Amino acid sequence: MKIYCARHSGFCFGVKRAIRMAMDAMQKYKSVYSLGPLIHNRDFVAELEKKGIRIIEDINELKNSDYTVIIRSHGIKPTILAKLKKKGVNIIDATCPKVRRAQLYVEKLKQEGYFVVIVGEKDHPEVRGLLGYAGENSAIYSEGIELKHRKIGVVPQTTLDFEHFYHAVKTLLPKVTEMKIYNTICDETILRIKEALAIARKVDIMLVIGGKNSANTTRLYQICKSFKPAYHIESVKDIKKNWFKGVKRVGITAGASTPDEQIAKVVNYLKNIKT
Amino acid sequence: MKIYCARHSGFCFGVKRAIRMAMDAMQKYKSVYSLGPLIHNRDFVAELEKKGIRIIEDINELKNSDYTVIIRSHGIKPTILAKLKKKGVNIIDATCPKVRRAQLYVEKLKQEGYFVVIVGEKDHPEVRGLLGYAGENSAIYSEGIELKHRKIGVVPQTTLDFEHFYHAVKTLLPKVTEMKIYNTICDETILRIKEALAIARKVDIMLVIGGKNSANTTRLYQICKSFKPAYHIESVKDIKKNWFKGVKRVGITAGASTPDEQIAKVVNYLKNIKT
Repeated sequence: MKIYCARHSGFCFGVKRAIRMAMDAMQKYKSVYSLGPLIHNRDFVAELEKKGIRIIEDINELKNSDYTVIIRSHGIKPTILAKLKKKGVNIIDATCPKVRRAQLYVEKLKQEGYFVVIVGEKDHPEVRGLLGYAGENSAIYSEGIELKHRKIGVVPQTTLDFEHFYHAVKTLLPKVTEMKIYNTICDETILRIKEALAIARKVDIMLVIGGKNSANTTRLYQICKSFKPAYHIESVKDIKKNWFKGVKRVGITAGASTPDEQIAKVVNYLKNIKT
Repeated sequence: MKIYCARHSGFCFGVKRAIRMAMDAMQKYKSVYSLGPLIHNRDFVAELEKKGIRIIEDINELKNSDYTVIIRSHGIKPTILAKLKKKGVNIIDATCPKVRRAQLYVEKLKQEGYFVVIVGEKDHPEVRGLLGYAGENSAIYSEGIELKHRKIGVVPQTTLDFEHFYHAVKTLLPKVTEMKIYNTICDETILRIKEALAIARKVDIMLVIGGKNSANTTRLYQICKSFKPAYHIESVKDIKKNWFKGVKRVGITAGASTPDEQIAKVVNYLKNIKT
């Protein structure tokens, strides 16, 4: 069985950077907290916890001003950032620079008087953060969105797939007179999807590795599934041998929060399968 | 045979206004010239010429400063307007207010440093006029357009159909970081296409009335043709009786430069056909 593993898979730049910053913080400071899990990967987060990075969901859990808090790559609302500053805790801001850029664009649109529409998953931490920068005069895009404004600003979640983004723009366009779009979709997201599609075309089945709660992995899985039989697995444990009967070529890709180690384990496992 | 005639057909607001302004000018002034044919309809233009509105293509033909020149609804480049002013001729500016708005948006985008992309027919007078406002740093949209700029402004021809506009936006979006769109497509254009489609759905054949050199009529015809057998006619003379064999329902629509009188003639002719 031939194995095709995507080069653009696994941890993205922003996630790698956040993990590196967290590791550095652990070396330097005593009580290190992550505001929400650092990445969308249970196993990896459990390992980080063992190493001493505790997860908190509410900033009120930070009782002591000598605590260190890590802002994960998704970023946070400016109001929460302000509260953290007021508390006087040590802040390690690991917001992905591409997310930070999106936040600044949202803020600019707000200042220029646009009604801001964020295109993305409504419960995703990045989207919640962006909305915080957009202020009152904003909304998350939905199919039946009703706009009372003819002048809107549009910013997509950095990990949105382009087809979804374009569909939103197409739906919004006839409803408005002026639309200012910042295309903040990350290049890595685009390359990841492009490469996954190229591989899906030439293989018999696709394995997509990543947390079941990772939005970008789930989307990657859905996209692959529309071309070839595909399986969304969290780790090597989820693989079933009967998937590979008669399979000559298998493709592998992974979401932005999947460690390289996890991908390597899957590749090794597949190398030893007899079909 | 039942006849369904679109309400949103024939002269649009901007064309009606330009004709009214030209008629007024003829009452008031001696030598009245139109810069290019006032509308894209040969018969109507011939009638206007009989009434005394002469057509010129080149402003150098205006030899005398007591001449009156009409700027048609499509508008003109600012450089030509400046030359007309310098000549000291009497200018009747019948640029459609919606085209004028598009010109101002293009000028604004240029001033704000955007690379301006006009989406429309490259030889259409409105598009040539808009390009004049866009300056050097601009282009007409084409399928394989290459952009050296990551910050672009997009303005469509006022009579562009939405699908064409969307397609352009979709092609441009992945190539840029920032896109400011002014949706200048005229409501009448949208209603005209919508109604034509609704009628095409329920009839056996469609007649589309308008000049063969009228871009918006040709597009209307192409759109109808993709749903039902359709014929693009300039006037009642182009109709062939054998089109109506076994036809129970016929639909009629007309481009923005088709006089009501011409539409009425077609309706009357059809009323007397036996199928």
